[in-house]
Amino acid sequence: MWTQDYRLFDAARIDTVTVGVFTWASTQPAPDVYDFTTLDAIVERAAAEGRAVCLATGTGAHPAWLARAHPEVTRTDFEGRRHRFGQRHNSCPSSPVFRRLSAELARRIAARYADNPAVIAWHVGNEYGGACYCELCTAGFRDWLRKKYRTLDRLNHAWCTTFWSHTFTDWGEIEAPSALTEHWRGPDHTAFQGITLDYLRFMSDAMLTNFVDEKAAIRESSPDTPVTTNFMGMYRPVDYHRWAAHLDFASWDNYPPDDRSAPRMALAHDLMRGLKGGQPFWLMEQTPSTTACRDVNPLKRPGINRLWSWQAVAHGADAVLYFQLRASRGASEKYHGAVVGHAGRSDTRVFGEVAQLGAELERLGGVSLGARTPARVALLFDWDSWWALEISDGPSRLVRYQQVVLAYHRALWDAGADVDVVPVTADLCRYDVVVAPALHMVKGDLARRLEAVAARGGSVVTTFLSGRVDEDDNAFLTDVPGPLAPLMGVRVDEWDAREADVVNPVLLECGDDRLEAASRLLFELVVPQGADVVGTYRADFYAGTPAVTRNTFGDGHGWYVAAGLEQDGVSWVMRQVLARHDLLGPYADVADLETAVRIAPDGTRLRFLLNHRADKVTVTACAGGVDLLTGERVEAGQPLALDPLGVVVLRETA
Amino acid sequence: MWTQDYRLFDAARIDTVTVGVFTWASTQPAPDVYDFTTLDAIVERAAAEGRAVCLATGTGAHPAWLARAHPEVTRTDFEGRRHRFGQRHNSCPSSPVFRRLSAELARRIAARYADNPAVIAWHVGNEYGGACYCELCTAGFRDWLRKKYRTLDRLNHAWCTTFWSHTFTDWGEIEAPSALTEHWRGPDHTAFQGITLDYLRFMSDAMLTNFVDEKAAIRESSPDTPVTTNFMGMYRPVDYHRWAAHLDFASWDNYPPDDRSAPRMALAHDLMRGLKGGQPFWLMEQTPSTTACRDVNPLKRPGINRLWSWQAVAHGADAVLYFQLRASRGASEKYHGAVVGHAGRSDTRVFGEVAQLGAELERLGGVSLGARTPARVALLFDWDSWWALEISDGPSRLVRYQQVVLAYHRALWDAGADVDVVPVTADLCRYDVVVAPALHMVKGDLARRLEAVAARGGSVVTTFLSGRVDEDDNAFLTDVPGPLAPLMGVRVDEWDAREADVVNPVLLECGDDRLEAASRLLFELVVPQGADVVGTYRADFYAGTPAVTRNTFGDGHGWYVAAGLEQDGVSWVMRQVLARHDLLGPYADVADLETAVRIAPDGTRLRFLLNHRADKVTVTACAGGVDLLTGERVEAGQPLALDPLGVVVLRETA
Amino acid sequence: MWTQDYRLFDAARIDTVTVGVFTWASTQPAPDVYDFTTLDAIVERAAAEGRAVCLATGTGAHPAWLARAHPEVTRTDFEGRRHRFGQRHNSCPSSPVFRRLSAELARRIAARYADNPAVIAWHVGNEYGGACYCELCTAGFRDWLRKKYRTLDRLNHAWCTTFWSHTFTDWGEIEAPSALTEHWRGPDHTAFQGITLDYLRFMSDAMLTNFVDEKAAIRESSPDTPVTTNFMGMYRPVDYHRWAAHLDFASWDNYPPDDRSAPRMALAHDLMRGLKGGQPFWLMEQTPSTTACRDVNPLKRPGINRLWSWQAVAHGADAVLYFQLRASRGASEKYHGAVVGHAGRSDTRVFGEVAQLGAELERLGGVSLGARTPARVALLFDWDSWWALEISDGPSRLVRYQQVVLAYHRALWDAGADVDVVPVTADLCRYDVVVAPALHMVKGDLARRLEAVAARGGSVVTTFLSGRVDEDDNAFLTDVPGPLAPLMGVRVDEWDAREADVVNPVLLECGDDRLEAASRLLFELVVPQGADVVGTYRADFYAGTPAVTRNTFGDGHGWYVAAGLEQDGVSWVMRQVLARHDLLGPYADVADLETAVRIAPDGTRLRFLLNHRADKVTVTACAGGVDLLTGERVEAGQPLALDPLGVVVLRETA
Repeated sequence: MWTQDYRLFDAARIDTVTVGVFTWASTQPAPDVYDFTTLDAIVERAAAEGRAVCLATGTGAHPAWLARAHPEVTRTDFEGRRHRFGQRHNSCPSSPVFRRLSAELARRIAARYADNPAVIAWHVGNEYGGACYCELCTAGFRDWLRKKYRTLDRLNHAWCTTFWSHTFTDWGEIEAPSALTEHWRGPDHTAFQGITLDYLRFMSDAMLTNFVDEKAAIRESSPDTPVTTNFMGMYRPVDYHRWAAHLDFASWDNYPPDDRSAPRMALAHDLMRGLKGGQPFWLMEQTPSTTACRDVNPLKRPGINRLWSWQAVAHGADAVLYFQLRASRGASEKYHGAVVGHAGRSDTRVFGEVAQLGAELERLGGVSLGARTPARVALLFDWDSWWALEISDGPSRLVRYQQVVLAYHRALWDAGADVDVVPVTADLCRYDVVVAPALHMVKGDLARRLEAVAARGGSVVTTFLSGRVDEDDNAFLTDVPGPLAPLMGVRVDEWDAREADVVNPVLLECGDDRLEAASRLLFELVVPQGADVVGTYRADFYAGTPAVTRNTFGDGHGWYVAAGLEQDGVSWVMRQVLARHDLLGPYADVADLETAVRIAPDGTRLRFLLNHRADKVTVTACAGGVDLLTGERVEAGQPLALDPLGVVVLRETA
Repeated sequence: MWTQDYRLFDAARIDTVTVGVFTWASTQPAPDVYDFTTLDAIVERAAAEGRAVCLATGTGAHPAWLARAHPEVTRTDFEGRRHRFGQRHNSCPSSPVFRRLSAELARRIAARYADNPAVIAWHVGNEYGGACYCELCTAGFRDWLRKKYRTLDRLNHAWCTTFWSHTFTDWGEIEAPSALTEHWRGPDHTAFQGITLDYLRFMSDAMLTNFVDEKAAIRESSPDTPVTTNFMGMYRPVDYHRWAAHLDFASWDNYPPDDRSAPRMALAHDLMRGLKGGQPFWLMEQTPSTTACRDVNPLKRPGINRLWSWQAVAHGADAVLYFQLRASRGASEKYHGAVVGHAGRSDTRVFGEVAQLGAELERLGGVSLGARTPARVALLFDWDSWWALEISDGPSRLVRYQQVVLAYHRALWDAGADVDVVPVTADLCRYDVVVAPALHMVKGDLARRLEAVAARGGSVVTTFLSGRVDEDDNAFLTDVPGPLAPLMGVRVDEWDAREADVVNPVLLECGDDRLEAASRLLFELVVPQGADVVGTYRADFYAGTPAVTRNTFGDGHGWYVAAGLEQDGVSWVMRQVLARHDLLGPYADVADLETAVRIAPDGTRLRFLLNHRADKVTVTACAGGVDLLTGERVEAGQPLALDPLGVVVLRETA
Repeated sequence: MWTQDYRLFDAARIDTVTVGVFTWASTQPAPDVYDFTTLDAIVERAAAEGRAVCLATGTGAHPAWLARAHPEVTRTDFEGRRHRFGQRHNSCPSSPVFRRLSAELARRIAARYADNPAVIAWHVGNEYGGACYCELCTAGFRDWLRKKYRTLDRLNHAWCTTFWSHTFTDWGEIEAPSALTEHWRGPDHTAFQGITLDYLRFMSDAMLTNFVDEKAAIRESSPDTPVTTNFMGMYRPVDYHRWAAHLDFASWDNYPPDDRSAPRMALAHDLMRGLKGGQPFWLMEQTPSTTACRDVNPLKRPGINRLWSWQAVAHGADAVLYFQLRASRGASEKYHGAVVGHAGRSDTRVFGEVAQLGAELERLGGVSLGARTPARVALLFDWDSWWALEISDGPSRLVRYQQVVLAYHRALWDAGADVDVVPVTADLCRYDVVVAPALHMVKGDLARRLEAVAARGGSVVTTFLSGRVDEDDNAFLTDVPGPLAPLMGVRVDEWDAREADVVNPVLLECGDDRLEAASRLLFELVVPQGADVVGTYRADFYAGTPAVTRNTFGDGHGWYVAAGLEQDGVSWVMRQVLARHDLLGPYADVADLETAVRIAPDGTRLRFLLNHRADKVTVTACAGGVDLLTGERVEAGQPLALDPLGVVVLRETA
């Protein structure tokens, strides 16, 4: 079968393969036995066939013998139940035996294959995630807390434990927050936000320790080959910003839920690119056709796989891979899409499209490798705010962090602006516009740095539920939005939350530009403290009061969006902001025509045009250049036509 | 901050504060250490500022050290899981160490503060509720059963254990009914109603024992200061009627789900007033603005806090308090509404309205204190029927006790009748009308006492699913509705239950008064045994058969509503009944204008008019008097105008 | 009360009673005590009253003392929780003490009553089902696997354990698949299909062992009296085909969810009849009026109980019984419908209808006993395919095996064809048409046997998601539909799954017969390999491609339905097939008029006509004969009228 596979890989120009992701049971079939026979054969064959290999340590699932010999290697779930052998991503991150043996396996694999020139990257574990609530993790949590707070007094203050008689008098009294302690109705409903928030941070750190363990073991014999692990885009349980420094490059698995996912993927790509300061990433996994893990698994329409692969490149991917290359014979991913199906055919539609894309990427060559995105807009993405907002009691559990962030990013994406999605600690000096949706938690000197953006003429945009809590999730004992209030020039005394069917129209006005846009879910009542009113509520007892404001701060602006505006309102606001800085893209008015720019290390400027529409669209070229997919010359000012789902990669010359 | 607080309390005329509700970890920081430093400071400050204090024992949540030292102090949940430290209301009611230490804490607090004249009431625990299923509770349950049944034969007979091979041959075989024994799909789905019903009664009694423990400890040093605990209105897990005799006065926390809650609150107030035979109660908690515990927490509209506070007084409250006075800095109630927010401002809308209400209450003075409601209508509320109905298999789980009761109470409320909501053991001699919705269980001499009401000319109203089971939840082996059949003059052989979207119209006719009203969910098929037909089904194979009947019994009537009438049908029936006794209120035809009468100990008659409408309404005064809020004279027969959400408190003189 | 009961049984011609189903606690009140006093009295009374007795062993629920003495007798649930005493069907099938004591009880009951001529059948246990996940079952599972696979290598290959590092190196590493091992979101979501599939098979076998234990004990003293247990129609957890050989006759409990259940019941009756090769079965339980176990329990309309009882006879029942005869006084079935209610009346509608039916059955006499259904159509029903399809990840969890099978059976039922519902191992030689809906798993020589049906001129119909996996749930490494491909003459490379609201219209064409029918949920893309196109998709990117095909194979046809057609489309296809074989029933065009034929051992041909409509219907008699219910003569070609819900049982003479 391998012979058939490699023939087909050649036909599809598949030049890089990730192997060994779940091989632990194979490479270590018993406590004292390591057996690389199969992996040797795989790597040798791949190398012999001229394929580059991304080699996994294979520790994403432990072997059955390990679970039997060391039951504590399995996880204890949120309900307090110790699991037994099964599933994957199943190891307790605090288990000493897991830490020892996973590092040892990584050490041996690196030692064995480090000198194989086909190995171009190390892939540690797989899709880190989930959580464990066992006694070992509880002990680890207490150690983590002791390091963080040093004294119980500091911890009690940070967690506000006078509430509900929670004062801790001994570190040993602290429990991992679960369904058996503080929670009800699942992980988001906690009686004690401080404990839960710190456990989220601890668990992210505990899994990072697992990654770091293995990476250190790899580095013993492989000093230079880059090390990564596959992330999952906007994945709540793991704070990728805390991890980023430990990865040599970022990579991620992209499994969008449906055909309408282009804006969401754009955000995820920008987030992944932002992990390493704009450095290119790998798209480690995507399906060429269907997923299998969902209740309903629709088929990727013709052209979609190609379009979305190019979208990844447009946003910073230097590699685009598939899961899976050959359909698994059995078990739970046997119906997951594959480049080569069970029958091993090459005359299928899916294989044909994969091969066509392979040919195009070959035609592109290395021009985009290492290229950077010249964004002047930053969007702040903050796991702490995500967690704090969604574990909070009140004002509304219907407000979801991702949805808010997505609406603001989409507004920028629709308008054709290149955007860096960055952590709150990022250097903001390079940006004209900084957008901070639902920035619930404001830490450190962030408020001052945002003020600096405005002071030098930039625009800062934030929304309802921002500036509410400090790094311990305690409320600022000042007017809302806390440290952001001076920049925003507003004060919020009260807020209304309503069911999803309640709409309050907001009238937006800026010069002659007017729009009445619906808002939902959350309505803050704003008392301007110097800010100008840009939008006003039209209904309810607060009709006529401000819903959107703009405050002049230094040479720039602080925008405050107090209402849960729907997409059209958000887009209206963001276009006002972008227009001021001349950052609207050339095709901002062509719906679903995405543009993205990358600048290669040698200065080559690439403009990607991606037509997400089902119809052909013709625009006017804003710059001349060569379409690298067709080799055709495009002149500035001339018509440029894109087929339905069409892609143009323009090496701009004017 | 306290200085600022008390200045603001003065401004708002807040004269009574409840303190110490969750202070256990503070007052007893270690097994052998009691430390009242903080509580002393709080009470001293409150007393010094001239504030009355309702002082809590603080046992609503145990300290972390206690859970660690005595793991059995925590609860075991319905799923059989022993919890660890966390949450509140977290103590096993059967735990000896909890019983000992909670009583000891109450003892010490009472001893310390009993002589402080500022302490005007003791507040034991907090919002008793939930349930525990641990081994200690199982043992307690067996003791409780042994006391109740004395022999296993009696228990086996009461529980009908020949069914499904359940005969118990040793008390030790009996388990607490849970997800691990008789239940599936949660607490309402039981394979053995008798066991589950008795466990509900036992658990209510077990928590009552906790209250009684603490009250007895308080009484050792405080013989006279009244003792209460804060109830929660219609709260299913605790049978407040079993508790009422042990409280010196009732109090409750009112957190309605939305702005349309006026009728529901009216019922809850009447229920709370009925606990102690009509004696006034305290509204212990309400939010001035928003809750935080719900998925969506809407803001109380301007005027609502005032209107609803007056509604409490109209229904029998002698005190109206807030939770919370100052917004908590952290943890899960930091976004719960407060009189004073995080920024400590007094220039907010919410503070302004609280202060306005404070001023009004001050203007009212003591005139309403101790006043009684002169109701001639009683509505029976019965926890046993609630439990039995909702744990029953068949006929329909869509029929919910609260919904049925609410519809009948609302009909009376809409019609302007003052209503006492009373237990089935209440003296019914004083009432012209007794309404018993969904009185599934009929115990003791109740049927005879209801017959007596009718015999002397009164009206008794009951509905579908009444008179089905005896106190052990066994079916009466007679025609339905069992002991109520003679009074109702009907027999029910069969019944139809349908999904919520199935409507059977009922034609109601009484003289010239006709209405076709929808009915849903449950349709009993009635064979009259002397009763007159007032309503008939219009559809299905039982079209033309009786849906509502009225039986002449002595000088009065027994009404039987066999169909699940919607509100308009229920209201039509109840107005027929009220009209016969001349009990329709003066503004029965003005929608959402509530009236309520209280008669003070000195005979002063107060009529409260509460306009729940968003528009102004003008009615004709039915009696002259003085509006105590404005001081203005109102003449009988003259127009009386109420603003939107307006309130008039009329001291009637004619 | 018994005197009253038997008087009423006489009035209703109830001649057979099932007794003792849950008597364990009564017959064995302590480990060493057997007490048959009560059962003696029941059996003696029944026998004395001339009633036949179906005598149960009473082991469907164990006594409380047993659970206390041997906690391992209770089950451990899917969540890993050991249950304590409660419920019914509560014994671990692998528990040695349960196996020993249940067999011993069966032995003693058989020994005691075997010679009583009133005892005409033995009823073992009750409604076997559910599952257990305890250590004993885990050990039993390992033994079962060892017998099945002999070596771990074979097991690892069958389960495809190289996936996700699951290679087992010791039998002791294998866990019962549960929420603590491979599952999430319930029993259908498994990370390892092979393990879960084998556990389903094992658990069905483990409970069969319990049945076999008891049957063997009965046979020690009762060599000839037939033994049964009551099945539940289409009940997923137990593979009744694996059980059938061990029962002397099949019996089942019929509790349809609503009044529109006639087609579903027809399928269930045919499935039950198919268990024993067409041998008649008993309808062991049905309610005369209402169930109690559902959330909403509607009342059987007048005439329904009669009509549905006759439907059972029409499909092969030789006995029709009720649960329950007398309403239980208490516990969870006290509101379940009964022939005699709590008040013991005979003047109720329900009793009247039961008595009328009893009289009719008496009039029928023994003519239908032992009769067979002369079906020329077989529908394959396969628990393995059911399980494999519904535990699969991808393509769609919305595709439910029962729904697909029901649609195809309904099409046949609507068309008036008699259908045998048979296992995949059945002899197919006698059938002209074989329908295999959603035959996900294809085992053994089935494909060859289906080809033989077509080769000799028959028609074979299968659908989407058929022919996908082998008996180990591993994909066939060939074109879809695997071994069925040659017969079907198609190849399927890809498939689209969509949410339930997405419709793709399919244009069906066969000569002049055309229909555009909606399809949903699953859309396979077909590449014909010789088959003719009968239906084409009308929408999406695969518009114009085949949705239904017919392949000529030998003298017959292989039909492939690639789309999730709604009922009208399925019916159109099936009528094409039936028409070719002249198998459309005489009243195929009269909606909801069911016909069924049975041929008695003496050759008497009975045609049942069942009018499921609410209106009267008149048809032309297709054969002459005598209506056995009225004694009236019917002539061929003359009008034959059926009342609403009417029944005619025609002994055909022409």
